[in-house]
Formats: sequence, structure tokens, C-alpha cells
Amino acid sequence: MKKPAAIVLLSGGLDSTTVLALARSQGYDCRTLAVAYGQRHSVELIAAERLSRSLGALEHRVMTVDLAGIGGSALTDTTIAVPETLGEGIPVTYVPARNTLMLSLALGWAEVTGSRDIFIGVNAVDYSGYPDCRPEFIQAFERLANLATKAGVEGAAFRIHTPLIDWSKARIIEEGLRLGVDYAQTVSCYQANAALEACGRCDSCRLRQEGFAVAGVPDPTNYA
Amino acid sequence: MKKPAAIVLLSGGLDSTTVLALARSQGYDCRTLAVAYGQRHSVELIAAERLSRSLGALEHRVMTVDLAGIGGSALTDTTIAVPETLGEGIPVTYVPARNTLMLSLALGWAEVTGSRDIFIGVNAVDYSGYPDCRPEFIQAFERLANLATKAGVEGAAFRIHTPLIDWSKARIIEEGLRLGVDYAQTVSCYQANAALEACGRCDSCRLRQEGFAVAGVPDPTNYA
Repeated sequence: MKKPAAIVLLSGGLDSTTVLALARSQGYDCRTLAVAYGQRHSVELIAAERLSRSLGALEHRVMTVDLAGIGGSALTDTTIAVPETLGEGIPVTYVPARNTLMLSLALGWAEVTGSRDIFIGVNAVDYSGYPDCRPEFIQAFERLANLATKAGVEGAAFRIHTPLIDWSKARIIEEGLRLGVDYAQTVSCYQANAALEACGRCDSCRLRQEGFAVAGVPDPTNYA
Repeated sequence: MKKPAAIVLLSGGLDSTTVLALARSQGYDCRTLAVAYGQRHSVELIAAERLSRSLGALEHRVMTVDLAGIGGSALTDTTIAVPETLGEGIPVTYVPARNTLMLSLALGWAEVTGSRDIFIGVNAVDYSGYPDCRPEFIQAFERLANLATKAGVEGAAFRIHTPLIDWSKARIIEEGLRLGVDYAQTVSCYQANAALEACGRCDSCRLRQEGFAVAGVPDPTNYA
């Protein structure tokens, strides 16, 4: 029987890489999509391409979109500092409309490739400050996808899969290790250097370090 | 009193140009956004920039996204011919997830500029074959916008304005002329040449010609 085809949004970080491994283990033939949106941590795109190959995806694409011109986030605007402590409310690393845009790109590619399943590694636990990581956002996008597309109108139902949405970082790591993910190859840091080494101090590094500590496994991250 | 700020999606065609004139007449300070998505009729981007200026927008931006890599449409894939007659069902000029993507870009820019109003020139009459031109799609996107964003979570309500959605092409032209739009400057043709001249034969040219005929006004379009 032919495997169902899926699009997996793959940033090269810990979460999305685990999602790719999960989608493969569930029997999907995966195409991976990385989005170059002007992020300061663009070295993650190199990691994404390598991980796509090593985890057996059919194809990897990088789509470019000039969100940097919009500004408004520490991740795309180098005049806003990346914070080293988690504050209250929505973090300055929030990128306006990022997940809406990424899911839109995935939706277009899904429609063209005959895929009905889209996987995204959003997480509502650690990143609760990001509005576009919440279940109600994902449900609204799924509804939109089925109204927006020729495939949807013709009766195919798109599904947005968010397997990590209520998992702790430790559980994500445990499941990924069980599936053979090599986390030394993933880049989570918001300001990783050209050698793909992490700073060890930004929000994203701290959450990752905590995850390995709670899971009780050694942290394989390459730090600068 | 300060005018409310709006983002207007402006392709340089007849419909979106009329929308800009309408938004201005309703008292909005407008920023215009054109999206370069690999469309074969990219000369419309030149028209859009000129029209933004002549209709008094605050600022014009072109955002680039490589939808062309996705393919699947006569508008982005030069191996699919642009049809010269309107067929049944969804046209081959349908671009997968195009309006979802354009509205996502507009949403990101709206959030950063403090705009809560987004204008788009979709029309459910002439282009009834496009799923992402229907009122139910627009309502679903508006709902999504308010779940997706920091501004939405913090209580600001985004509104997606579609003033043309149930207007005939003739009515669009009549309203635009009343507001002083110079339609000779707009480019609707799917395969306009570098001199911004229209083919006069594609779907889009035919609908436009009919509009001027029904409105009983001379067609000012520059034909090749």
C-alpha cells in the first residue's frame, strides 16, 4: 500500500526534528519545508537540510519570504536584543504572523503534492506566550485550509498535526531518542554561530537544557 | 483626529486599485502591499507601485515569496498555458493558497504598523471558481487573525475588508471612476508585456472588457 504523503515544517531545531521522526514512524512519506524568513539564526537552515536527509524525507525545500522587512521581533530585527531570561507575557522573540505564514506555505505545497497532512512542531507548554502555538489557532488554521483550497472544496480534508502541542520538553526528548534522533545535529539557539554552536544563554537554549536535565539524559548540544 | 491605518493588498489590477481608492475615500491612511510570488505577469508590480503613489498611500512595499517553486498554477508555472476561455469549475489560474499567504503577509505588517484594517479586492462574482475569494474564507481568515497575533490576544480586533466581494465588474468600474481612478494605469492581464500592454484574450482581459462594456464607458486599457 502506498504511504500517505505529508508536509513537515522543519526548522532544524529540537522540536521540529522530533516531529519529522514521529511522522516517519507513523508511516508518512514526508516532504520537509524550511522557511527562510530573515531569522538571525539562519544557520538552522543548514541543520534542517542535513536532518531532512538523515531522517529519510523524500525531498527538502527552503522557501524564502522577506518577513525581515516587517520587523517587530527580536528574531528578525537585529536592533532588538534576544533576551536571556524568560519574562511575563508574549516574548519579544514572537514574529508577527510567522506560523500563519509557514502553514500557508506548507498548505500550498501540500495541495500541489497531493498531501493532506501537515505536521508542525508547535508547543503550548514551554512557549505558552506565543499566540500562534495554541490549539485554538491550529484548529482555526485547519478550518481555513479546507475553505481556502481547491482540494478542500473538492472534498479532501487537510489535517494539521501538532503531536508535541502538550508535551514537556523532556517528553519530546525522550520520544525523539526512542526514535533515534541525534540531537547533537539539531540547532535550537536563537543566536547560533556559523559553526552551528549554541550560545547556551537565550530562552531557547535554556528551555532545551532544562529538557535534557529533566529527562535525565546528557545534553549533546554543541556549545560555543 | 488621527486617521485609522490600513494595509491594502495592491496587485496593480483593476480590482485592488479600486479598493485602494475606496479605502482612502473612507478615511484610512493606507500602506500598500504587493506580493511577488513568481507570477508570470510580474509587470503588474510596476503598475502597483505607480498606483500606490498616485492614489496617495503612505508607503508601498513589495514582499517576495517563492510560490513559483510550488508550481501547480498557470500563473506561476510557464508550462501550463493561460486559458483564453472561461471553463467550468476552478480555473487553472488558481494559485494554491495564494490569498491565505497574501493575507498572512498583510497581517504581519498590520500588526507591526498598528493597523487593524486589511483591505483585499477579492470578488466572489466574476471569480466564483476561486475558493479563496469566498466570504466564508474571508470570515475564517479574520477569525484566525485574531487568534494568531499578539495584537489579537491583547484585544485588538483585526478586520478584513472586502468591499468588492459581491460587486459586478461594471459596478467596480463605476465606483472607481467616481473616485477618480485612472484605469489606463491598471494592469489586469495575466500575460501583459514589458510595456504593460494587455493581451486582450485571457480570462482576466475578457472579464475586464465586459465590465467596461456593461458600465457603458470606453475601455482605456492599453492593448498590445
